[in-house]
Order: sequence, then C-alpha cells, then structure tokens
Amino acid sequence: MEYRYLKNIKGPDDVKKIPEDQLPELASEMREALFNRLTKIGGHFGPNFGVVEIAVALHYVFDSPKDQMVYDVAHQSYPHKMLTGRAEAYIDDEHFRDVGGFTNPKESEHDMFYIGHTSTSVSLATGLAKGRDVAGKKGNVIAIIGDGSLSGGEALEGLDYAGEMNTNLIIVVNDNEMSIAENHGGLYKNLAQLRESNGTCETNLFRAMGLDYRYVEDGNNVSALIKAFREVKDTDHPTVVHVHTVKGKGYPLAEKNKENWHYSIPFNRETGEPLHKWSGESYNSIFAEHIQERIAADDSIVVVTAAVPGAVGLGKEIREKLGKNYVDVGIAEEQATAMSSGIAKNGGKPIFVTNATFAQRVYDQMTQDVSLNGSPVTIILCSASIFGMGDATHIGISAIGMFSNIPGIKFLCPTNREEYLAMLDYGIDQTEGPVIIAVPSDGVHPAEYSFDTDYSGSAKYRICEEGEDIAILALGDFFGIGKKTAEYIEEQTGKKVTLVNPRFATGLDTETLGKIAADHRIVITLEDGILDGGFGQKVASFYGKTDVKVLNYGFERIFYDGVKADDVLRDCRITPELIYEDVKSL
Amino acid sequence: MEYRYLKNIKGPDDVKKIPEDQLPELASEMREALFNRLTKIGGHFGPNFGVVEIAVALHYVFDSPKDQMVYDVAHQSYPHKMLTGRAEAYIDDEHFRDVGGFTNPKESEHDMFYIGHTSTSVSLATGLAKGRDVAGKKGNVIAIIGDGSLSGGEALEGLDYAGEMNTNLIIVVNDNEMSIAENHGGLYKNLAQLRESNGTCETNLFRAMGLDYRYVEDGNNVSALIKAFREVKDTDHPTVVHVHTVKGKGYPLAEKNKENWHYSIPFNRETGEPLHKWSGESYNSIFAEHIQERIAADDSIVVVTAAVPGAVGLGKEIREKLGKNYVDVGIAEEQATAMSSGIAKNGGKPIFVTNATFAQRVYDQMTQDVSLNGSPVTIILCSASIFGMGDATHIGISAIGMFSNIPGIKFLCPTNREEYLAMLDYGIDQTEGPVIIAVPSDGVHPAEYSFDTDYSGSAKYRICEEGEDIAILALGDFFGIGKKTAEYIEEQTGKKVTLVNPRFATGLDTETLGKIAADHRIVITLEDGILDGGFGQKVASFYGKTDVKVLNYGFERIFYDGVKADDVLRDCRITPELIYEDVKSL
Repeated sequence: MEYRYLKNIKGPDDVKKIPEDQLPELASEMREALFNRLTKIGGHFGPNFGVVEIAVALHYVFDSPKDQMVYDVAHQSYPHKMLTGRAEAYIDDEHFRDVGGFTNPKESEHDMFYIGHTSTSVSLATGLAKGRDVAGKKGNVIAIIGDGSLSGGEALEGLDYAGEMNTNLIIVVNDNEMSIAENHGGLYKNLAQLRESNGTCETNLFRAMGLDYRYVEDGNNVSALIKAFREVKDTDHPTVVHVHTVKGKGYPLAEKNKENWHYSIPFNRETGEPLHKWSGESYNSIFAEHIQERIAADDSIVVVTAAVPGAVGLGKEIREKLGKNYVDVGIAEEQATAMSSGIAKNGGKPIFVTNATFAQRVYDQMTQDVSLNGSPVTIILCSASIFGMGDATHIGISAIGMFSNIPGIKFLCPTNREEYLAMLDYGIDQTEGPVIIAVPSDGVHPAEYSFDTDYSGSAKYRICEEGEDIAILALGDFFGIGKKTAEYIEEQTGKKVTLVNPRFATGLDTETLGKIAADHRIVITLEDGILDGGFGQKVASFYGKTDVKVLNYGFERIFYDGVKADDVLRDCRITPELIYEDVKSL
Repeated sequence: MEYRYLKNIKGPDDVKKIPEDQLPELASEMREALFNRLTKIGGHFGPNFGVVEIAVALHYVFDSPKDQMVYDVAHQSYPHKMLTGRAEAYIDDEHFRDVGGFTNPKESEHDMFYIGHTSTSVSLATGLAKGRDVAGKKGNVIAIIGDGSLSGGEALEGLDYAGEMNTNLIIVVNDNEMSIAENHGGLYKNLAQLRESNGTCETNLFRAMGLDYRYVEDGNNVSALIKAFREVKDTDHPTVVHVHTVKGKGYPLAEKNKENWHYSIPFNRETGEPLHKWSGESYNSIFAEHIQERIAADDSIVVVTAAVPGAVGLGKEIREKLGKNYVDVGIAEEQATAMSSGIAKNGGKPIFVTNATFAQRVYDQMTQDVSLNGSPVTIILCSASIFGMGDATHIGISAIGMFSNIPGIKFLCPTNREEYLAMLDYGIDQTEGPVIIAVPSDGVHPAEYSFDTDYSGSAKYRICEEGEDIAILALGDFFGIGKKTAEYIEEQTGKKVTLVNPRFATGLDTETLGKIAADHRIVITLEDGILDGGFGQKVASFYGKTDVKVLNYGFERIFYDGVKADDVLRDCRITPELIYEDVKSL
C-alpha cells in the first residue's frame, strides 16, 4: 500500500491541504491503515471503521489543538490519531507500539484527556468550554459521542447541563445504531424516529435537553460532514450534530455482524477468521453454561448487564434463549444496580454482571440502593485483577479496596472453578444481602482442596495446609502464588508452612486468625489488588497489638498502565523467591 | 386541633372511606399535622407541604402495599407516612421519634426502600416491576420523583430504561419548579414548556425517552389527581404523570422563599423565625467569606456544586455576586466532577463542593475523569464525619476509605480553622492533581500549633508534641480527642506522649513513622471514619514487620443509623479513658 496522502500527514494542517474531492481517497487509505494494524495486533474494529469520515471532516474544518476534541470512550480515536501526527503507528508495523488504544495527552497535544470509560465526553467538554471562557481563551470545544454511550448517566447529566450553557460547545452524536451489543433504552426509539424523519420529527431528546440540533444522514460522506461542521463552527451556543454512520463501514463482514466486530483480535482479512483460536475452558463459558442450567430450573433468576454481556460469555443466541430472564439496560451501571435491588425486593434473584473497572460507577448505588436495603443481589466482577486488561483505564485492581469497605457487603474471592460455582450458587440462593464475587482471572484451575457450599454469616477462612511458624493467607486469584510460595519456603527451610484460603475479602475470621497467632511468628497476606484499603491491611491491623509479624503483598496505589502482570508482580515482590527474602530479613 | 379525619386513619383503607369531596379537609388536617411536627422538631418543609394532595390521591386510587410506591429521596414522604398507620408521629408530640425522615421498610410495609439519596426511585421501580413480573405477582409500581431529582444520572438512566419496558410502571413527576435551590439544566426549559402548554407541546423529554405521558396542571387539587391516577392505574406500559405542584403549599412564607423553606429547624409559625438562632463562626461562613475574597482577586477560580450550595454557605446573594465563577449543575455529581476536570485542563481553578455522602456518586469520575488525568481539582467534602448528619443515608464516615485508596488523590484532613484555609488555598493554587479536603465537623477551632501552607509532594506528618514510648496519630477532626488522650495518659503515667497531626489520609510519611519506631513502643491512630480501608490500617501495615504495637481507632463497618456521635465514640472506645485501658492491657 502506498498511502499517497496519509504518509504525508504530520498534523491537521496537512489534512487541510488536500482538495476536498480527494478526501474520500484519504479515508480509503486510512481504512487500509486500520486493516494493517488490526489484522496484526487487534483492537477496536467497528467503532474506528465507522468514524473515519467524521475524523477527517473535523480536522478539515476545525483547528486542533486550539479547537479541542474529546472522543467519548476514545476507543474510536484511531483515525483522529492518524491525522494528528501518529499515522506511522498504523502504517508502519514497527511503530504499532507508539500509541495506545485510547486518547492520551502524553501521546499528543491533540488528545485532551486520557479516556477509556464511556459517557464522559460531554461533561468533560462542558468543563473545557467553561475553562476556556473563564481563562479568556478562544476556540471550539467538540465532544464526539457514540449513540451507545448516550444511555450512561454521566452523558445524560452532561447533555442536560450543556443545555443551559450560553457558549460554544459542539456535540457530535455518532449514531451507528449500536452499543457493543444492541442498544437498550427508550431513547433509541427516538434516535430511530430522528433518523427516519431526516432529523425533522418533533419529539427530540436533544431539543428536550435545551440543545440546538441538526442532522446528517450520510455520516460516511465527508462533504456532507464538512458542510454541517462549517455551519456550527464558532457557534455561540451548544449544538448537537446528529450523524448517522455505519459501524464497521468498509468491511462487509463487520457491517453485517456488528457485535462480533466491535473489537477484534488479529485476524485473516480474506476470511475474517482469527489468527489464533482460543481453546480450552474459560470462566465466560463456565458462567454462561451454569446460568442457563440454573434459569431452566428457576424462573426467578434474572441476569442483569450494562451492555457487556460478552464479559460472561452471553452471546446473542444465549441471550435470546434466556429471554425475560436476561436484562441489558444499556451502558447504565447505576440503573443496573438499583434495578437489581428492586428485582430482589420483589422476590427475583438478580445477578448483575460487569467488569470491575465499570463497577466503579456504582459505589453509591451498591451502598444505598442495595446494601443499606439488605437486597440479596449477586454481583459478578470480571477482570478484578492484574491479569487481563492492561490499560490504566481498565485494570480492575481497585475492586477490593472499593467494595470491601462498604457496610453490609460480602466480597468473595474464589480460587478455582468449583469454588466459583459454589459461591455463585450461594449468592443466587441466599437472602442475607449483596454478595460480590471476583471471577478468577489467572486461568481456570480445578479444585485441589475441598470447598464449602455455604458462605453465610461472617468471614470464615479455610486452612488448606497446616504448618507452623509461617502462615500464608492467599486471597482469590493469588492462591496459586501462595501455594507456590509455601512450597518454596518449605524447600528452603524444611519446615511446613500453613496455607490459608481466606475466601472473604470482607471482614476478618478472627477465630482462625487468633489460632494462627498461637503457633505462628509470621503471617503473609497476598491479594490481587492495591494494598491500600485492601485485605492485608485489615489483617495487619488485627495483629497490631500482638507479637505476630505481618507482611502484606499487593500493588502500589498508582495507575499501572500498559503493564505486564509478571513485571508488576516482580516489582511488588510477589514471587516465592522475593517473599522468602523478606521473610528471612525478619 | 381535632384531626377529625386524620386521627382515624390507621392505613390506606381508611383513606378510601372518606368521601372524595372531603379529601381537601383531610389534606388541610395533614398540613396542620406537618406544622405540629415541623415547628417543634424541624424537618423537610417545602417538599412535604407540596406533596400532600399527591399522597392522598395515590392512597385513594391505589392499594398499597400490593401497589408499591417508591418516593424519590423520600424526604417528602411525611404525608405518605401519615396515611399508612403513622399519623401519630405527626399529631402526637410523644410519638415524634417513632418515625425517621425518610421511607424505611423497618417502619412500615408501605415503605419499599430505605432511601435518602436523590434520583434513585425510577431505577428501583423498574426493578420492582421486573421482580413482580418474574415472580408472577400483580399490582402497580409507582415512582414519585421531584423535578429537582430528574437531573441526576441515575434518574435519567432509569427513565431511559423504563422506556423500553412493556409492563406496568407509573412515574409521577412532582414538578414544583425547584430543586433545593433553583433548578439547573436544559431539561427544565422543557418542563416549563410542558407546563405552559398544559402538557401538549411536541418537544417532550419523557416521550423522547420512549414513555407515555400525561399532565396535571393543578397538582394540589386532589380530584384532578384522582382522575389522572385512575386513568393510568393498571396500565400495561410505563407512563409519566407530570404533576404541577407548589412547593411549600399552604404556608405563604414557604411558598414565597422556597429555598430557605426546603428544610427547617424548629420555628415560630406566626413569624417564620427559627426558635434557636445559630451564633458563632461556622465552616460554612468561613468558606463563603474566603472564597469571595479569592475570586475577587483571581477570575479563574470556579466554585462548582451539585445543588447543595448551602453546604458551604453560598446563599443566593453570594451566588449572584460570584456570577460566572459559580456553577450549579443541578443534582448531577458526575457532571460536576468531570466538568471540574475540564475546567482545570483549560487553566481554570475548580473547587467542587459537596457533602461526603453525595460524593459516593463520583468514585469513578474522581478516578478516571480527574485523577488519571492529573487534573488539579479541589474537592471540599462537608460532613465527612460522625459529627453532623445522623441518618444511615447521610453519615459521611466512608469518605476516607472511599477516596484515600484511589491512585493519585491527595486527601487532606485539617484540624483547625487556619489549617483548613491553608489547605484550601494550597488546593486552589497547586497544579499537581486532585486534592480532597474534609471540612472539620466538630466545631470551629483556632490553630494551637503552627501549620504549613505547602502540602505538595508525598505525605508529611507534623509532630506537635514530642514524647516517648507512646505516640498518638490523630487525624483531622479527631485531633482534639487525640490531644485529650495524650494529656490523660500523661496524667496517668507521668510520661510525655508524642502527639502527631498526620494531615494526610493518603500515603504514609514513612520517614516520620520510622523515627517514631525508634523510641516508641506503642502507636495509636485515631480517625473520624470507618476503620476498614482507612488511615490506621495503613499505619498498622507499615509497622507489621516491626516490634511497634499499633492500636487503630475508628468506626465499625456497619450502617450507623440515627445515632449520637458520643454513643458511637464510646462504643468504639474512642475516649481518653478507654484508650488508656487498651494501652495498659498491652
């Protein structure tokens, strides 16, 4: 591929030098560059293929970084990156690692924020606009938000507040008729009405929020976009430009199966087949299979998700089969959480499934709507771990510190397949209150020790190996490391080490801890989370008035970004060898 | 007062026995009962006076508890309580303490949830509806939500999801044209259009969310309400009944000054004057005065609030004076937080002020929108303390555990007036990142020790008194208790105790802690928050491998409700005498 235009684009000024009638050629090259990167290293597919023309038109009309663009979620910012000095990261394989998957001010002055969560762009843009005005600066502020993100509370709050600002603010709604999966929520009926009426129907969510509005039917036509953006440039009031695009535009397979092509691992362009096939059991399939069995026998179970059914392996077919026992509220975690509480109140058995990083949205709802009301809601937290998602925006290592300190919540950390299912069943069938279960992320392991089916009442730890002098409390995902560490220390010292599966991140099993104090000198805690606010510090506090020495292992309170789990483990001394070194130094 | 009708109402069935034309008489008696309670012990005034007819009409038409009612915030649930067996708590002074200020299932089967935060009712109601349907139950589900609560993301998510439910759900929007203060947000322009057009204008937020809609202009006319509710009873799809009421209806002073009469302390009915006048300095007036001075000299400072300007003493006059340097986003904490990050990004100096309990809404926004982006936002947390608000829904003792474990955040705990102002100025003028300041809640104290103006970099504690053997680290609000404890132990032992003002809830001053380890045997930590996830456990973890004994003092991980601070302090052994007992037992 020659990249006649793209290779010469070092910044937005170079976009403006291209004759308007040649911009479709540029767009075509950009899609080739996307193919080059995505077939080889994967990434968000559909969102980027759909937004190419929007990115071109924005940089053709506006003057970044004086004019400031905020991409919602920023998983669709690849075309924007190509046009702002980072084309090499797409056309030259050796430069793939120059850029991350989201906007990041450390990469470019054209990226306003490091973003990875949905529904934040309008609120951030209202702030940029206000900051611009109080600082006496000039320029346009532009939020680019997908239709899927509109259902999020932060986006709706942002649109509402924008509706009373009397200043320049442009909100480009990129409507590709999709969230990650299909959209859910009444507002999508209105978006459909607006599309069908070419933007003219009277019922209009954006106007109802106090915003000016215009519509572009062919959002993959650069000239139509340029015309619309020129009309709103330098506007003195907030305006929505509702743009209809095709998700995955330019790759027929992706245009046809939009959900599967939201994100892609490396694939064969001819066939669409992934280059590396996943084999073996995953916690996704384990959950999906188990929950279908449970629902077949118990009609009161309801699986609730906020637009991430894939996190627990609920593909389209399974969702259809689950029928009324499956609820996707759209990107709306607060709604999912409070709704789950209501379901439980009327005798339903709700299971809210989400990724740990998105659960950050519901600290208050978990506290007030669920826990204070004693509602038996089961929450399945995926990727609450250093293993898995690597971007600072998505690492789920805050989960224990976030939820385990809220009154009334039970936070369970299974260590293997059977224990996970036992805890899941316990959560579904109990009536005490909210139960959070952190799905193991370090692969699927079968049970090596016996496990319980009842986790009611206060924390009870399980002693898996009885030893002396040294005890290791290895929580959840880190049980395997704990076991290896115990074995290593035994090899080195010839003395048996006590190995404990704490199972509960909430509360302390003071009885077991007391017994351990009687014949152990050193207690080691291991947890797959940030140390501050976590499990180990509670154990340290318990032993504070005793002679037992406590060594806590977990992560630092920093934003890890683009890291490999093994590197972080080593940096935090979470290896059998380094832990033994620390033990010796006592 | 005779309470001819009200005294005979033991439950909703008794409401239905009253002839419809006599219901205004019942409403009048209910207002008398409200006066009886509120003049003597205070409570939410305007919301309850405005909603009397809605409560009467709902219980006249529907059959609670088979039909389930969810009052948003539930600060306007007094009339509902009167009609559901709790009238005595309003007409008989000896029974005032029988009921709390919010709905609570422990009080009555007619209260679905214990609620105190805004914007949750629609989401909870969608859950009740779903739970009803999967459990095969019958009945209407009714959410009653004020216009002020509509700007909250959870409410908007709830309306949106309700818009795709094909089942019975009734949403009564009680539009009194007010939040606590005036409303903010574009949607309020639409509510005004709807009121002006008698509900007929085409632009309609609720229809745009996919909901059916009807309008009642005179929401304080029981018969008009009964007619509307009868029309939607047993509906098979979600319907909004938009009802126009007068906040404070029936008390001219309250109808005129709605903001001041949102909540009232005990007052004289004739004059409206409070029975007990507050005198002396408060942290409200300290903030309000200081921020006016700062803004007069620096036009880039912006005070942001989410509908609670009163929390920092910003009355109407001051707000008008601050002009463009004051932003109220309405009840929309997520918007306030993300917007603050945007303001900072463009060189403004944002200060987001809120109550600690409402800050629970922004765990994710503080993490992603603010801290990950290194945005220098100052957050003023009011009532982050056991002193002050006493309802389980409002106690702010989770604040340290919630925010101090998020990467990149600096959480400062001033101990007195001068230190507070120094920290506030530091927060405003620094450019490192987010700074949270917990406003002291145990009264205004002047500085007894010198204090710093610079809090940059990592945690640095201040040793106020140098002693030996025992060191007390007394954080923020609890510095006073720490000082008294030090003095008490000195009296008892004759030995000088080290007294430390840690100032930072985030991070550890390992240098100072190391020095303390050298010549102290016991370290005591005190914090005005739940122990789990807090300050003391971090100190315990630090000393885990040493011989230093650590005693952590703070609160249990439970929902304290309607408690007195002194009782909780004693239960948690946070008194000089009890702490000394614990020290002796080591």
